[in-house]
Amino acid sequence: MLTVAIANARDPKAAAGAPPSPAPGRVVSIYSEVQTNRIDYPLPLPSVLRSPFKVVDGPKSSAAGNPDEIAKLFPNLFGQPSAILVPTAVSPSEMSQKLKVGVVLSGGQAPGGHNVICGIFDYLQGRSKGSTVYGFKGGPAGIMRGKYDELTAEYVYPYRNQGGFDMIRSGRDKIETPEQFKQAEETVLKLDLDGLVVIGGDDSNTNACLLAEKFRSKNMKTRVIGCPKTIDGDLKCKEVPASFGFDTACKIYAEMIGNVMIDARSTGKYYHFVRLMGRAASHITLECALQTHPNITIIGEEVQQLISELNEILAHDIVDEGGLWKNKLIEQSRALFDFLPKAIQDQLMLERDPHGNVQVAKIETEKMLISMVETELEKRRDEGKYKGQFKGQSHFFGYEGRCGLPTNFDAMYCYALGYAAGALLHAGKTGLISSVANLAAPVEEWTVGGTALTSLMDVERRHGKFKPVIKKAMVELEGPVQFFGPASNEINHTLLLELGAQA
Amino acid sequence: MLTVAIANARDPKAAAGAPPSPAPGRVVSIYSEVQTNRIDYPLPLPSVLRSPFKVVDGPKSSAAGNPDEIAKLFPNLFGQPSAILVPTAVSPSEMSQKLKVGVVLSGGQAPGGHNVICGIFDYLQGRSKGSTVYGFKGGPAGIMRGKYDELTAEYVYPYRNQGGFDMIRSGRDKIETPEQFKQAEETVLKLDLDGLVVIGGDDSNTNACLLAEKFRSKNMKTRVIGCPKTIDGDLKCKEVPASFGFDTACKIYAEMIGNVMIDARSTGKYYHFVRLMGRAASHITLECALQTHPNITIIGEEVQQLISELNEILAHDIVDEGGLWKNKLIEQSRALFDFLPKAIQDQLMLERDPHGNVQVAKIETEKMLISMVETELEKRRDEGKYKGQFKGQSHFFGYEGRCGLPTNFDAMYCYALGYAAGALLHAGKTGLISSVANLAAPVEEWTVGGTALTSLMDVERRHGKFKPVIKKAMVELEGPVQFFGPASNEINHTLLLELGAQA
Repeated sequence: MLTVAIANARDPKAAAGAPPSPAPGRVVSIYSEVQTNRIDYPLPLPSVLRSPFKVVDGPKSSAAGNPDEIAKLFPNLFGQPSAILVPTAVSPSEMSQKLKVGVVLSGGQAPGGHNVICGIFDYLQGRSKGSTVYGFKGGPAGIMRGKYDELTAEYVYPYRNQGGFDMIRSGRDKIETPEQFKQAEETVLKLDLDGLVVIGGDDSNTNACLLAEKFRSKNMKTRVIGCPKTIDGDLKCKEVPASFGFDTACKIYAEMIGNVMIDARSTGKYYHFVRLMGRAASHITLECALQTHPNITIIGEEVQQLISELNEILAHDIVDEGGLWKNKLIEQSRALFDFLPKAIQDQLMLERDPHGNVQVAKIETEKMLISMVETELEKRRDEGKYKGQFKGQSHFFGYEGRCGLPTNFDAMYCYALGYAAGALLHAGKTGLISSVANLAAPVEEWTVGGTALTSLMDVERRHGKFKPVIKKAMVELEGPVQFFGPASNEINHTLLLELGAQA
Repeated sequence: MLTVAIANARDPKAAAGAPPSPAPGRVVSIYSEVQTNRIDYPLPLPSVLRSPFKVVDGPKSSAAGNPDEIAKLFPNLFGQPSAILVPTAVSPSEMSQKLKVGVVLSGGQAPGGHNVICGIFDYLQGRSKGSTVYGFKGGPAGIMRGKYDELTAEYVYPYRNQGGFDMIRSGRDKIETPEQFKQAEETVLKLDLDGLVVIGGDDSNTNACLLAEKFRSKNMKTRVIGCPKTIDGDLKCKEVPASFGFDTACKIYAEMIGNVMIDARSTGKYYHFVRLMGRAASHITLECALQTHPNITIIGEEVQQLISELNEILAHDIVDEGGLWKNKLIEQSRALFDFLPKAIQDQLMLERDPHGNVQVAKIETEKMLISMVETELEKRRDEGKYKGQFKGQSHFFGYEGRCGLPTNFDAMYCYALGYAAGALLHAGKTGLISSVANLAAPVEEWTVGGTALTSLMDVERRHGKFKPVIKKAMVELEGPVQFFGPASNEINHTLLLELGAQA
């Protein structure tokens, strides 16, 4: 009977309990001591960003899969090289150009998003004086509807090193239909934008690339650069070794899990089952498992085959009540489906996301596992094989991890990503994703550049049609045990990231 | 489909992923950097505990209510004075006495419990060299079954300033029946105990007082001292201004709530409803509300009348299916009951705790409120009065707050409580609760003493019988608005505590 209700603060001030004011943004005076202290946390830049640099092109790129299809979808951008920043002498004429740049936060929140914006802002203030930065409000819908604020030093200051996306808010709308592209085009023309930075996950960066292609096809001057955002950690490749927010979210969840584990050790009363936020990819769960050492870790990749088949069947076929549709599943998937409790079968068949896919993230696996263990133990009890006591306690850690104060790593990484995005736009680049790498080394040694978005792409069937997509990086299941053998490289990767964060 | 399962670590090492070892306790080598850093965090003591002191008695005490009944239940202890420590010259003969002391953790965990044990241990090491401390394992059951470990400097070291109760584990068993008292008596006689420290909440301290009375009535030398533990913050009075763990738990929950609020501000997608761990008293919710400023705060005290009536009816009367029993409710309670959704009515009637009371803490009020808001808005939509969109998101923050690393305040407060418990036993006191006060001042100025447990007691009907109980401190509802007016004293109280923690 102890409840705190928090309203959905459409007025950004309302939730913080501050008096309403006409100016947007946060009020530092109501910050906690920790928040205040974080604002002025100094952000070191990679050494290449601290001196004059030039942007050098690499070799021609291809696609992650089906290059012919990607080439058809992106005739102007396909094959363009990735770029890398290298130190050079100053080129005053190039550096004096003033830019008008828009920035948008797209999709779910990830700690560090504000620092990307601060990085863009500071780059333009420092290297392209007199430039203007516009923040599109409420995600891509802000571009389509022409809703934006001009970002000033005073506007961005309270958000430095702070969690959340509330500086300009985020949204999940997509710029997809011809009419929506037209609206976006009108806005960038009206604002006379030289560049647009899209901070988002795999879908949002695909969308950024489609916008870049569209603007280029019309000979518009507006360039588009993406930034890799998602706590899920599934937007990564060789050149983009991490998406921001993952480090912070994992550390927040790991702290909660650690507390629950100490609780379990202290009472010996419950078996705790923890589900973590996420969708198909389980990098968060794997990283938290490495940090906290639970007794058992189960990841979604192990049931991905069934999900994929269900997605395809549900998009194309009729699901008959008699269950004949199940014959379309391969043998293992059919066995797995039949093994699941009825309630979970129903969730798999009924809950769909906007793409028509099974909503894996909404399935309460923690409760499912408790109920399955109870059933199995009752069976064993009846057979006289079990005499113990089992009490399960379920947990879901989700929203509280998306908006925490960014770790030092995410704060620095995001600032560098934003700074790099500014540099890439300044150099006239489009259709790239801001890429900061060599992250296990000290910050000074981080490499900075941009990767051709088309080089990350493949085509995929959605609603039964081919669409360009950035392939999600899943946890690779190279063997039944993932803690030893070939797949352990993946694990070291996230741990090394942490070393980078402490450096 | 992203799940981490954490087993119920009956072996204290299993959950931490460490190899099993014959020695009990934690392995510092697998600690995180923060945990390691906290071990050696220096704990200042109140100045009175840093020099020679003597224990001075105050005036004769009474009871919180029904003193005649309390006098009957505690003929040997009723009326004894509280004690206060004051500086004095050394008295070598008194200080050289060696003691054998047992300690037990009772009930739910609260951050700081390990530091109480460290305080007792350090007091005896410093002021009563050659003393022995036994830790009873798994709560009061450890006393009854004679399960204990001898605590050494090496044994307690890894737990200094660490969360959880896993040093000796806790339990909820009670020493209640004549047979159980006999078992406890046998154990303390076998160990030749001079003293027993019971670290627990209101029920456990009542139990401590019953033990003290029993031992005194038999002229046994074993004295019993209580320590005020509960994150709920409902064990407090003038002399015992706070229970330990409250400060840490509130700060952990407030951080989670703050993150969720920033999430709400960033997307504008959900209305978030947060329920916090707790039972009847809502100090946690009120403190978190003061720290985070949610739009609406609802506390359980506002429905306490209905709960009390239901407890009484369910203990004595037949609940007929026709609902005639409802006529026994007073008018407001009847109206409130009828207003609640069927599922909540069922929870109120069916779920009972070991005392036969309604399990208020298990009612999912956050989901109930979302469903009630949905119903109301649908009604308004049908009437053409509402056109908006409402999506509720429910949260429960509980276990992750009970075992966190104690804040500086809880670390210092607990250490002083334990040190004081040692001093009170050393001075031959029994039936007192360790009392450290003046907590808003710097630590040096904290006052230290012991309060007669009988002075906190009243009698209450449980299962229809009178039982001695320490009255729970509830949030006082002195007016419809608790943020202004007389009841704001209560609020300032918790805030002032925090100033103490920062000092």
